Amino acid sequence: MQHAVELGETGFGRTAPNPCVGAVITRNGAVMAEGYHTACGAPHAEVEAIAQARAAGVDLSECTLWVTLEPCNHHGRTPPCTKAIIEAGIRSVGIGTLDPNPHVGGGGTAFLRDQGVEVEVGILEPACRDLIADFLLWQQEKRPGVLLKLAATLDGKIATRSGHSAWVSGPEAREEVHGLRGRVDGVLVGGGTLRADNPRLTCRSERALNKQPLALVVTSRLPEAQDDLHLLRHRPQETIFWTTDDQSRTPQADALRALGCRIWDLPLTASGMLDLRAGLTHFFDQGLGHTILCEGGGRLALALAEQGLADRLRLYLAPKILGDATAINLFSGRDELDMGQALPWRFTRSRQVGADMCLELRPQTQQGAARNGAPESIPAPRSR
Amino acid sequence: MQHAVELGETGFGRTAPNPCVGAVITRNGAVMAEGYHTACGAPHAEVEAIAQARAAGVDLSECTLWVTLEPCNHHGRTPPCTKAIIEAGIRSVGIGTLDPNPHVGGGGTAFLRDQGVEVEVGILEPACRDLIADFLLWQQEKRPGVLLKLAATLDGKIATRSGHSAWVSGPEAREEVHGLRGRVDGVLVGGGTLRADNPRLTCRSERALNKQPLALVVTSRLPEAQDDLHLLRHRPQETIFWTTDDQSRTPQADALRALGCRIWDLPLTASGMLDLRAGLTHFFDQGLGHTILCEGGGRLALALAEQGLADRLRLYLAPKILGDATAINLFSGRDELDMGQALPWRFTRSRQVGADMCLELRPQTQQGAARNGAPESIPAPRSR
Repeated sequence: MQHAVELGETGFGRTAPNPCVGAVITRNGAVMAEGYHTACGAPHAEVEAIAQARAAGVDLSECTLWVTLEPCNHHGRTPPCTKAIIEAGIRSVGIGTLDPNPHVGGGGTAFLRDQGVEVEVGILEPACRDLIADFLLWQQEKRPGVLLKLAATLDGKIATRSGHSAWVSGPEAREEVHGLRGRVDGVLVGGGTLRADNPRLTCRSERALNKQPLALVVTSRLPEAQDDLHLLRHRPQETIFWTTDDQSRTPQADALRALGCRIWDLPLTASGMLDLRAGLTHFFDQGLGHTILCEGGGRLALALAEQGLADRLRLYLAPKILGDATAINLFSGRDELDMGQALPWRFTRSRQVGADMCLELRPQTQQGAARNGAPESIPAPRSR
Repeated sequence: MQHAVELGETGFGRTAPNPCVGAVITRNGAVMAEGYHTACGAPHAEVEAIAQARAAGVDLSECTLWVTLEPCNHHGRTPPCTKAIIEAGIRSVGIGTLDPNPHVGGGGTAFLRDQGVEVEVGILEPACRDLIADFLLWQQEKRPGVLLKLAATLDGKIATRSGHSAWVSGPEAREEVHGLRGRVDGVLVGGGTLRADNPRLTCRSERALNKQPLALVVTSRLPEAQDDLHLLRHRPQETIFWTTDDQSRTPQADALRALGCRIWDLPLTASGMLDLRAGLTHFFDQGLGHTILCEGGGRLALALAEQGLADRLRLYLAPKILGDATAINLFSGRDELDMGQALPWRFTRSRQVGADMCLELRPQTQQGAARNGAPESIPAPRSR
C-alpha cells in the first residue's frame, strides 16, 4: 500500500477536481501491475492497474488489488470501478480509506462484498487520507490546497542577513521545485521575496507544460509600476497582488493595473494581518485553480501556518551551516513564547535529493477527512 | 553491505581502541547470519557472524561474507580472521574498505585470494570508511572523536529567546540521547548551556552502564563554587572546566578545585578562541577516553565545526515551528558572509525517532581514510 500511496502522489496537481489515487496489484507479495489517476477524465487508478495486468497476461483471480481510496460504485466521467474489479475476476481488495462523501462512502465496499470479494478497509489509512487532503479542501473549504516549499541551511537560514540566497539548495532540489511549479496553478510569495529576489516564478524545467502558474504576491507595500521586476516587465497579465484596501486605492495600484496586473484587496484578520484565506477562496471561486505553491519568505510562511492555511510543508535542507544568528530565518514574525506554543506538525516523508534532504510535513491539525475548523463565512475580496 | 554498516555502527563507543566493524553472511541474497565487533577483546565481526551461521547449521560454502573492513591477517588479541574464513569454507567475500594501516592494508585480501577465495573490495566504500573515521582520528590525530548532538525546531531554534528549551525533542529522542551518553567518555557543553540548563550530563537511561561520562564545560567565565549547579553539587570529581589561562589562575578557580573539579587552561587560537583541539588532545593523552559527545550550545557547536573538530553531527529536528527569529539558534557566532561561505557537510542518514526526524551528517572534508590535513605520522599496527 505504501507503493500505492507513492504512485497516487505522482498525480499531484494533475487530477483536480478529482483526488490523487494510487493502485497496485500483487500476487504473493510481488507487484504485478500498478496505476494511478493521471488526470481528470482519465481512467481511475484501479482501472489503469487492471489494464496493465491484463496486457501482461496476469491471472487476476490469484491477485490482490490495493487501492488508496475506496473504488467508486457509480457512473461519473468513467464507468464504476467496482464493476471493472468484478469483471476482472479479482477476489481480494485492500482499501486505504473509504470515500469521504457521506452519501457514497462504503457503497463500493458493500457492493464488492456482496459479489463475494474479500475486502479489507483501513490499510495505511493515515497516509491514504493525506493523499485526499487537498480534495477535501476543495470540497469542504472551497479553497486551493497550499504547498509551502522552503529551502534552508541546516541552521534554518533561508538567506544571509543581507538577503543573499543564491543558492541555498543544490541543482537537483531546484530542478524539482521547477517541476512543482509546472503542476500548480499559482505560485505565492511575499513582498520581501519580490524585492530581494526579483523572481520570475515560472517553471523553467524540461518538464514544463504549456501553461505557467499565476504569480501571486502578498504585500502591504505595492511596487512601483516602473520598478525593474521580472513580473512587471514580462508577466504583468499573470501577476496578482494581494494587498490592503488602502494600497489598492493608490495611484500606484492604478499604474500596476494599467500594466495588466490584477490587484485584490484582502480584508484584515482580527490580529490585523492580511486575511490570506480570503485570497485563497477568491482564487478558487474565480476558477483560477486548485493548487498553490508558496515559496516564502519567512513572514508569509509563518502567516500561512498560523492561519491554518499551510496544508503541506516541503523543506529542502542543505547540508551546510551558515552560523550567523542574524541571517534570515525560515519562519519569522512571532513574539516571545515558550516551547509549548510552537506550531505542531508531523513528518510524513524524508528523502535525499542530490546533496540536500527533502523533509515533507503536514500540520498536526490536518488529519485528512477529520479536519476541523473551516470558517462559516468568508468575506469576498473586491476585485477592481 | 548496508546492513553490515548499520550493525558495525551499533558498536559505537564500545570498541575503542578498535574500530567499529559489521559483518553479514548471505545465501542467494538472504541474510543467514550477522555479527559486529562488540568490544575490544571480543571476537571480530566476521568471526561472530561465522559462529552464528555454524550454530544455525548453515553450509558456509554456499554463502557470501560481507564485512565492512578488510579481515585481519595477523594475531592480535584474537587469531586472524582470514584463517577463520578459510576454515569455515567460505568461498566468496565482499569487503567495504581495506585496512587503512599501510603496513597491513591489502594483506588479508591477498591471503584470501591466494587460498582461492573470490574477493571483491570497495563495496559501499564511503559508508565503510565513515565507520572507521573515529579510529583514524585516534591513530592519526591522537584525539577523541566528537559527536555533536543538537535538537532544534524545524526553524533551527534550540531554545526560545529567553533560553527556554524544555522540550524541543520528544521522549524517544531524549531517551536515545541518554543512550549515547552511556557510550561516550565525556559530554561537552558550553558555559551558556551550563548556566541556562543546569544540566547533569549523566546517562539516565535504562541502558546505563556503571560508568558515567565525564562532564566537560568550555567557558571563558567560570561559575562560582557556591553556585547551585548539579555538576558542582553532585559531580565535582567528574567535572572538568576548559577555560582561559587567566581564569584558571583566579581564586574562583581555586575554589572549584577545592570542590574536586579539574580546571584545564587552554591556549587561544589565532582568532582568539579557546583552542578546543588542545583540550581534546589532552583528554586523549590523559587516557580519559576515545569518544566525546557535545550537546551545544550554538556557539560551542559552531566553534567545533569551524575548528574542524565536529566529526559527526546528529540533529534531532522536532516537527514544530517556533516562528520567532530572535529565538536561540542552532549555530551562532559568525559574521556577515555569503551563502558560498557556509560550512559544507553531507547527509549520511535520516530516520524518524518518535515524532522527530534524526538527521546524521559528517563534514565534507572528512572522507574516512581519505581525510586531508591529518598528520603524516604512520599509525601503529592495529591490535584489536
